[in-house]
Amino acid sequence: MQLFHEVRARTVTICAPLNKEDFIPQPAEFVSPVKWHLAHTTWFFEDFILKPFMPGYKVFDPAFSFLFNSYYQGIGERLSRASRGFITRPGVDEVFAYRNYVDMAVDSLITAGDVTEEVMNLIQIGCNHEQQHQELLLTDLKYTLSLNPLRPVYDPVLDLTAQHNAQEGYLHLSEGVFEIGFQGDGFCFDNELGRHKVYVQESKISKALVTNKEYLEFIQDGGYKRFDLWLDEGWAWVNEHSVTEPLYWGCKEEAWSQFTLAGMKSLDPDAILSHISFYEASAFAEWSGKRLLREDEWEVASAELDWGSRWEWTNSAYLPYPGFKTAPGALGEYNGKFMVNQMVLRGSSSATAHGHSRNTYRNFFHPHLQWQFAGIRLAL
Amino acid sequence: MQLFHEVRARTVTICAPLNKEDFIPQPAEFVSPVKWHLAHTTWFFEDFILKPFMPGYKVFDPAFSFLFNSYYQGIGERLSRASRGFITRPGVDEVFAYRNYVDMAVDSLITAGDVTEEVMNLIQIGCNHEQQHQELLLTDLKYTLSLNPLRPVYDPVLDLTAQHNAQEGYLHLSEGVFEIGFQGDGFCFDNELGRHKVYVQESKISKALVTNKEYLEFIQDGGYKRFDLWLDEGWAWVNEHSVTEPLYWGCKEEAWSQFTLAGMKSLDPDAILSHISFYEASAFAEWSGKRLLREDEWEVASAELDWGSRWEWTNSAYLPYPGFKTAPGALGEYNGKFMVNQMVLRGSSSATAHGHSRNTYRNFFHPHLQWQFAGIRLAL
Amino acid sequence: MQLFHEVRARTVTICAPLNKEDFIPQPAEFVSPVKWHLAHTTWFFEDFILKPFMPGYKVFDPAFSFLFNSYYQGIGERLSRASRGFITRPGVDEVFAYRNYVDMAVDSLITAGDVTEEVMNLIQIGCNHEQQHQELLLTDLKYTLSLNPLRPVYDPVLDLTAQHNAQEGYLHLSEGVFEIGFQGDGFCFDNELGRHKVYVQESKISKALVTNKEYLEFIQDGGYKRFDLWLDEGWAWVNEHSVTEPLYWGCKEEAWSQFTLAGMKSLDPDAILSHISFYEASAFAEWSGKRLLREDEWEVASAELDWGSRWEWTNSAYLPYPGFKTAPGALGEYNGKFMVNQMVLRGSSSATAHGHSRNTYRNFFHPHLQWQFAGIRLAL
Amino acid sequence: MQLFHEVRARTVTICAPLNKEDFIPQPAEFVSPVKWHLAHTTWFFEDFILKPFMPGYKVFDPAFSFLFNSYYQGIGERLSRASRGFITRPGVDEVFAYRNYVDMAVDSLITAGDVTEEVMNLIQIGCNHEQQHQELLLTDLKYTLSLNPLRPVYDPVLDLTAQHNAQEGYLHLSEGVFEIGFQGDGFCFDNELGRHKVYVQESKISKALVTNKEYLEFIQDGGYKRFDLWLDEGWAWVNEHSVTEPLYWGCKEEAWSQFTLAGMKSLDPDAILSHISFYEASAFAEWSGKRLLREDEWEVASAELDWGSRWEWTNSAYLPYPGFKTAPGALGEYNGKFMVNQMVLRGSSSATAHGHSRNTYRNFFHPHLQWQFAGIRLAL
Repeated sequence: MQLFHEVRARTVTICAPLNKEDFIPQPAEFVSPVKWHLAHTTWFFEDFILKPFMPGYKVFDPAFSFLFNSYYQGIGERLSRASRGFITRPGVDEVFAYRNYVDMAVDSLITAGDVTEEVMNLIQIGCNHEQQHQELLLTDLKYTLSLNPLRPVYDPVLDLTAQHNAQEGYLHLSEGVFEIGFQGDGFCFDNELGRHKVYVQESKISKALVTNKEYLEFIQDGGYKRFDLWLDEGWAWVNEHSVTEPLYWGCKEEAWSQFTLAGMKSLDPDAILSHISFYEASAFAEWSGKRLLREDEWEVASAELDWGSRWEWTNSAYLPYPGFKTAPGALGEYNGKFMVNQMVLRGSSSATAHGHSRNTYRNFFHPHLQWQFAGIRLAL
Repeated sequence: MQLFHEVRARTVTICAPLNKEDFIPQPAEFVSPVKWHLAHTTWFFEDFILKPFMPGYKVFDPAFSFLFNSYYQGIGERLSRASRGFITRPGVDEVFAYRNYVDMAVDSLITAGDVTEEVMNLIQIGCNHEQQHQELLLTDLKYTLSLNPLRPVYDPVLDLTAQHNAQEGYLHLSEGVFEIGFQGDGFCFDNELGRHKVYVQESKISKALVTNKEYLEFIQDGGYKRFDLWLDEGWAWVNEHSVTEPLYWGCKEEAWSQFTLAGMKSLDPDAILSHISFYEASAFAEWSGKRLLREDEWEVASAELDWGSRWEWTNSAYLPYPGFKTAPGALGEYNGKFMVNQMVLRGSSSATAHGHSRNTYRNFFHPHLQWQFAGIRLAL
Repeated sequence: MQLFHEVRARTVTICAPLNKEDFIPQPAEFVSPVKWHLAHTTWFFEDFILKPFMPGYKVFDPAFSFLFNSYYQGIGERLSRASRGFITRPGVDEVFAYRNYVDMAVDSLITAGDVTEEVMNLIQIGCNHEQQHQELLLTDLKYTLSLNPLRPVYDPVLDLTAQHNAQEGYLHLSEGVFEIGFQGDGFCFDNELGRHKVYVQESKISKALVTNKEYLEFIQDGGYKRFDLWLDEGWAWVNEHSVTEPLYWGCKEEAWSQFTLAGMKSLDPDAILSHISFYEASAFAEWSGKRLLREDEWEVASAELDWGSRWEWTNSAYLPYPGFKTAPGALGEYNGKFMVNQMVLRGSSSATAHGHSRNTYRNFFHPHLQWQFAGIRLAL
Repeated sequence: MQLFHEVRARTVTICAPLNKEDFIPQPAEFVSPVKWHLAHTTWFFEDFILKPFMPGYKVFDPAFSFLFNSYYQGIGERLSRASRGFITRPGVDEVFAYRNYVDMAVDSLITAGDVTEEVMNLIQIGCNHEQQHQELLLTDLKYTLSLNPLRPVYDPVLDLTAQHNAQEGYLHLSEGVFEIGFQGDGFCFDNELGRHKVYVQESKISKALVTNKEYLEFIQDGGYKRFDLWLDEGWAWVNEHSVTEPLYWGCKEEAWSQFTLAGMKSLDPDAILSHISFYEASAFAEWSGKRLLREDEWEVASAELDWGSRWEWTNSAYLPYPGFKTAPGALGEYNGKFMVNQMVLRGSSSATAHGHSRNTYRNFFHPHLQWQFAGIRLAL
């Protein structure tokens, strides 16, 4: 199964430039150690596929199920999320051995030939799950390295924030009834299912995303000091954390620079803005006299938009589609449990695995988080 | 203006059974002291109406604007929300004198005869604002008294949780395009405006609200111990605060009782459930195999529903309607700033002022809060 | 018994200028509401004297024992310390009725004539306990009123920080073996008992306490910005709370003023410094090239010192004297339980009841607390 | 200089059984990563000796001074203490290269032959400083490994908690004037200096330390549930953290075991107790009807005591000796800044470097900390 091999290999490739020490820390609760990502994505295949479906499969190490489970409470006890950075053993080498062991087992399960469609679906879920963790691995790694006063370089040619807009102007969307939600034969997550009709209002949607230069104007116009632009909780967030710019940005003697996976870079004014929270996206929209999109209008308009370099914050809360059903068992914990207090992002980012996203994809994060490659698209 | 006199008088009536000491404490940040409610609702009339529109108006006390402003940052500095319970002076008598002073001034402004429509609108907003605070005053007071181990009685005949359902069975809603949002001549808040089309799916909506007996079954079935029923953040809330029942409930030797404004009462199994958070509403719905309503379907169905005894949690996040515009100036801070991380409640409660609500009314609270007279309506 | 009548009357006198509202708030955990002080000191007489020793005594209200116990865990459950400000009932009038009821009972117990020495001792403890609470009542009240932006006046003639030094120069203390600890017939607390020998080193002790002017020099010399002057935990405290001056001080356009019980006053440079924490006392001593006294040398020197206007921070931790024994039962919880993490203060203050202190008296507070009338005496 | 070579080599030996991953985490603010200990002790030699005293010395890496300074604020900015576990680069290999580089430089400085006494003293301080960090390295490492549910083994033969008492009975100490504090030619820390007279009371001091068996009796007698045995802050600590036994102990089906550096071991009842906080030591003493020693009587009695397997909690707060002077400059920050809110421990432990301690040595920790090899000696 080609997807399986590609995905598993890409995770290893992402880790290639790292030292063993880089695999360990967890500098914030929303971040996971690199080692944990490696092991957790492997555990997924072992626990959901090999254990139940491979006759005679011998578990690599029974303790790993406890160590590398994430939120699947249905599976059993798990390590508290905040303690992931304190687990030094098994070491990195052992985790790679675990990956190889599981890879070979999945491989022989597939090549044995009589894999059911259920198992093939689970493998596909496992691959898409790992692709999500690849993106998290890159964003978590960037966050961890950024805390090091030496500002280390992960890969001198991998910046991921350098993209420019390919389009300009506005797309006109007429009002009416449209259908949203996934349809077709390919893979999708459960939160995209239940294709249904929505009534979308008329609007004009910007074809370009907000650039660094435009955001700098907001900053220079006192954007972070004007309470009237912010949601009440956004204003509290700005003040409690003394936020004055996007994550990773800094200004010295009027010259702006930003930390990237390729090290410190001077800020490209024409590049597309990244690493802003929903609160910042909302305040910027208010300042510009425009607004963020709703996720349904984004999906309806998406065919004519150039998307894929930044996850785009929408002004839609992450909620179930009509008729949403959680899958039975532990896999049902995948998405539904998080449908409160988070905002939807649409599209995908420069850190997303090729082919992973689609125009019905619903990503979601808490409104204060900045560490994703997230940007802003505006509408009128 | 009859509404003005009625509203101002009702606030005083609500306070009649209280001792002076009861006006002071603020036992949680989401609660305000009774005295503060009295003064803040008065400040609203003074600051938004008398100061700008009454020629020669002499401010009662310039310091009050600082003390009794709430979140209107546009008006100037304000006392931090958490400090409201430490302000013993001005005393209760002085705050009532402030009320009388402002009431007479508004009265003479109205009777002077040449009040513009703008001012009349502001007075109407002020009255509706005060009605909202009347409900908060009752819910805050209940919360404060409940912390007293003596469980004091506010009013022996005012329970507010004793209502029973008047209807049973299900209402069938056919799918299609509907319009929601306020229309007409009467008063509404800015968050109800922008009547617009929505596409609502087919559904069956319960005519009755969940009762105490039904919720007890959920408890006795281990509802608070089954993580699979809860949103992830709901489960964290349950565990962090050791929640095992609705607010104000208690169980001794298998007999359930609850604290009410009329003191401790044994739990009426047939009364409509109250004082549950959105997290509890969501878990109960999951347990029952049903779901909460969305706010648009609630509004579409409302004409055929018996509502008004409990605010009803919906599964809709509090977000702006298409075309939502904040009013310019400080009044614009009224609603728009809170459109993140809160869930919508529809209807009204036994503590709501008569005539205050309507079927387009959008109330909203954070999902963990239990202290409102909120209940559950389910749909299939 | 004259002491009993005097002490009980003085507490009432202290409360005379207050409004009912002033009796309620608890703005910090180290502060107690005025009403609580009134009731707790009364509860002490009821629980330790009337209940066990007055035949046929009828408790005023059984719930009060739960509400107004402080830390005496041996007596039974108690209200959590942080919740004292939320208890509006019993009201102030009822608490005064409680005081009168208990006063009359104690009075008739005494006048009945056959009171044992044990009971007389307990009454004496109760009176001294109440004198301690009189001082706390004043310091707590000052703290509460200071948080009110209106800066209310408690009593226009009661400043309590206006005293000047009566002596100057240094007292020379020769080294040798001395005895410290209480001896004699009068009353003392258990922590003063166990008179014992200590070896005190030679020293020169300032006869005057540090003045506001001297402390201003420390501020103007950057005292709050020089980490080298501070204990490590003191430096953390300064930075976490942005401390830049003693409690209640403020500076506007280079003019210093301070909040007092008589309202805002301009700072008298020659008055004795007050309202500094141990951390500040320690940093000031370091800055001045001198040091704080140890409690044993203070006691040895005290006969020749003019003390009594400020509690004086020593550099001695609050620890048991050799042979210290806690009294059996709940009264044994009075002092011994607090013998860790607190520093000793010697002397007494302008807020101390006349005749309450003596040169063996050991007061103690946590090193970060500023709200007592505490000052600095230096030695070489 | 033999001491230098021995000390530097021992640190490397301690790290020999570790994986690279073990060098990284900081699971609590009172713990430092192994890598940080390695680098910080090296930085001490570079910053205090090589930079100022070795002509032409070229700093290994200028960034290290920022990364590996601890609390010496006089030296310049430093990484916040809580962030030490997030610094993955420089890696472990580079830190060992740093050690080698500095070792060779110090070596050539010494062998060059004309080293002043001042420099020799500084090297001696550096060696003693590193010995302190060797002990911390072992205690920190034990703490980190204990959080791993796999309970990994550091060294199968290194338990460090297995010692038994060699003496029994009581030592009788007569009252009188004694001298305490360091005297002689060898090395000592500044907090031991200022030999001075003290008056010590008569006492009987146990020759044996408390054993596991004795402490189990305390547990089984409800020691952790009886508030009357505890200091008030100790009782709060027990309840807030649900403490029910010494750190690293566990009980399954009535069999007690403990985590050690050699892995999980069943509890030896006759071994000397370890890993208790001062609060636990104090409660145990209260329960046993005895008391902890004061540091002066410990020092006076020490010649006749068998000590060295556990640091012994005393009931003395860590305070300056009469005449204590901090050294000028950054080295003066070594001890004096910590003289508040900590309790003194005397002796040394099974994790202390051979020859590091002496009977005038004053160790100190906050009263709630359990992770040191600390035990209990009682007196009457």
